[in-house]
Amino acid sequence: MRTVDWVDGVVRMIDQRALPWSFETVDLRTVEQVAEAITNMTVRGAPAIGVSAAFGMALAGVTSLARSPEGIRADLSMAASLLKNARPTAVNLAWAVDTMLKLAEQQDYRTADEFRRALVDAAMSMADADVEICKAIGRHGRDLITDDSTVLHHCNTGALAAVDYGTALGVIRAAHEAGTHFHVFLDETRPRLQGARLSAWELEQQGISYDILPDTAAGYFMQRGEVQLVLVGADRIAANGDFANKIGTYQLAVLAKENRIPFYTVAPTSTVDLSLASGGEIPIEERGPEEVTNPYGNKLVPDHFRARNPAFDVTPARYVSGIITEYGIARPPFTESLRKAAAGQLL
Amino acid sequence: MRTVDWVDGVVRMIDQRALPWSFETVDLRTVEQVAEAITNMTVRGAPAIGVSAAFGMALAGVTSLARSPEGIRADLSMAASLLKNARPTAVNLAWAVDTMLKLAEQQDYRTADEFRRALVDAAMSMADADVEICKAIGRHGRDLITDDSTVLHHCNTGALAAVDYGTALGVIRAAHEAGTHFHVFLDETRPRLQGARLSAWELEQQGISYDILPDTAAGYFMQRGEVQLVLVGADRIAANGDFANKIGTYQLAVLAKENRIPFYTVAPTSTVDLSLASGGEIPIEERGPEEVTNPYGNKLVPDHFRARNPAFDVTPARYVSGIITEYGIARPPFTESLRKAAAGQLL
Repeated sequence: MRTVDWVDGVVRMIDQRALPWSFETVDLRTVEQVAEAITNMTVRGAPAIGVSAAFGMALAGVTSLARSPEGIRADLSMAASLLKNARPTAVNLAWAVDTMLKLAEQQDYRTADEFRRALVDAAMSMADADVEICKAIGRHGRDLITDDSTVLHHCNTGALAAVDYGTALGVIRAAHEAGTHFHVFLDETRPRLQGARLSAWELEQQGISYDILPDTAAGYFMQRGEVQLVLVGADRIAANGDFANKIGTYQLAVLAKENRIPFYTVAPTSTVDLSLASGGEIPIEERGPEEVTNPYGNKLVPDHFRARNPAFDVTPARYVSGIITEYGIARPPFTESLRKAAAGQLL
Repeated sequence: MRTVDWVDGVVRMIDQRALPWSFETVDLRTVEQVAEAITNMTVRGAPAIGVSAAFGMALAGVTSLARSPEGIRADLSMAASLLKNARPTAVNLAWAVDTMLKLAEQQDYRTADEFRRALVDAAMSMADADVEICKAIGRHGRDLITDDSTVLHHCNTGALAAVDYGTALGVIRAAHEAGTHFHVFLDETRPRLQGARLSAWELEQQGISYDILPDTAAGYFMQRGEVQLVLVGADRIAANGDFANKIGTYQLAVLAKENRIPFYTVAPTSTVDLSLASGGEIPIEERGPEEVTNPYGNKLVPDHFRARNPAFDVTPARYVSGIITEYGIARPPFTESLRKAAAGQLL
């Protein structure tokens, strides 16, 4: 099953908060429900929330009471604002919403129903494309993983972070499917434990050898020469190659450089935001302290203990060996290679 | 109350596994119980387990059925082996046991009871000295903390990690008592969360301003210029200044260097092991994966998910600005300054 899908007029998604304990799905019938599912992280992962937002736009069109294309356009405009504000950091969200808005602006629809069908078709096409893009990323990146090596991975970037297949974990999956034998260290990724809960669950299903690491132990294994490659995802990549990703990524990049380990970012070009010259301009979401003190109902410390919870950090491009996209691997200088990739040119 | 104490012929310690939820003490009546309390981390922290081991030796003497000093010596020899094997990394354990053995060898006791009293007196003196040593460390280090700054701290090095007062958190306490106004970021320190559970509990009691950070967020705040000083403890310091400390310390040291933030190790000279030329020779304990997957009964992931759990890492001396001891701050080259401090010369 896809992480997010359009089924019989509703948006169906895997509830990622229930994993790895139970596999549950939720059916969303309004754009408000989709926005809330993004905010509360029922769905997470930059590509997945992008496609979810596109389905949210389709839902806004389908549920609109307007009788004309103009009326639907007005409702879409409100939906776009709602969805874009659901989370601030991943640019895929805004990209997907804007892609849907462009469709609405560029075409003339004779009837409201024709418009509605076009919106649903466009969102479904975006979902299909996401799967193909992830597979292309996997093909471009898989040879970076060599036999008898160990790859370090942060957060979750697998099928659950996209519509299917995944980005950084997609590269890992592609190498596994190509017959390479290797081991994966999965950072547990506090506070929300996406590595321990989601990535481990995915690798268990795929039969890929792994160990979960506390986030404190990544440097230890790098220092001992037990890591040959670091693969991470991205939530927004600036024009110069600086990128935002799950909190903890910057640390890994510094440690990889210090230990001369190749460090690759893996993302579709929809994650590239050429409007930002550098990573300092990327908005960083700070979430509530209860995710630190009380994750998923596990009371680790008393509620009144104080905690900070930035959800992302920015890794400067100078730490990055390459960015694996659906058009190939972008190499430094990223200002040139990313512009090419974002224009759809093979690298 | 002291973290570990000798009360009416038994070893009484705070059960650190119960904090921050409840303040409980346990009374230990045999050396086997003391060794088990060290292994299962009822007591932890290099100075605290050193003094606990000394009390364990005293208990071995007091509970010995021998009628002669020679008989007690034989029982002490067995107790020493048991205690030294309770945990491998912190050298304070072996140091305290060896200090007690030397006492047994160097003096002639006329009766078994005289010997028993001497053992108890020696252990109690070591406990008293530990408190004074921590206070001296605090005086030497407190001026490193300046007004309106933020200090980053890892694991727990407070009163609970020693007999009282603490090492790195002792420096923080001394600066607070001297009237300096500052903020503390406490790494939560997975897997056992000593920062979130023990250090936060101590700073709550002392009224010192703090926030718990997920271990993934330390680099983020350093990169943003929001950390002015890093203070950590040590479990064993080699002759060249390399040192073992709680897993995650090495990462902080690399990040501090990368961001030009002073990084200080704080420890009594009983933590210095001049018999080791460098940190590569320090034995690193790896504990069970259930501490990662199921900390304190919080089932974070299914039991069959695989995890690694190294308890310590080694930070090379080149990342260390200084080592704060009871004789002053050791500076590079550490081979010279540590030898002086270990010989009891003021720095």
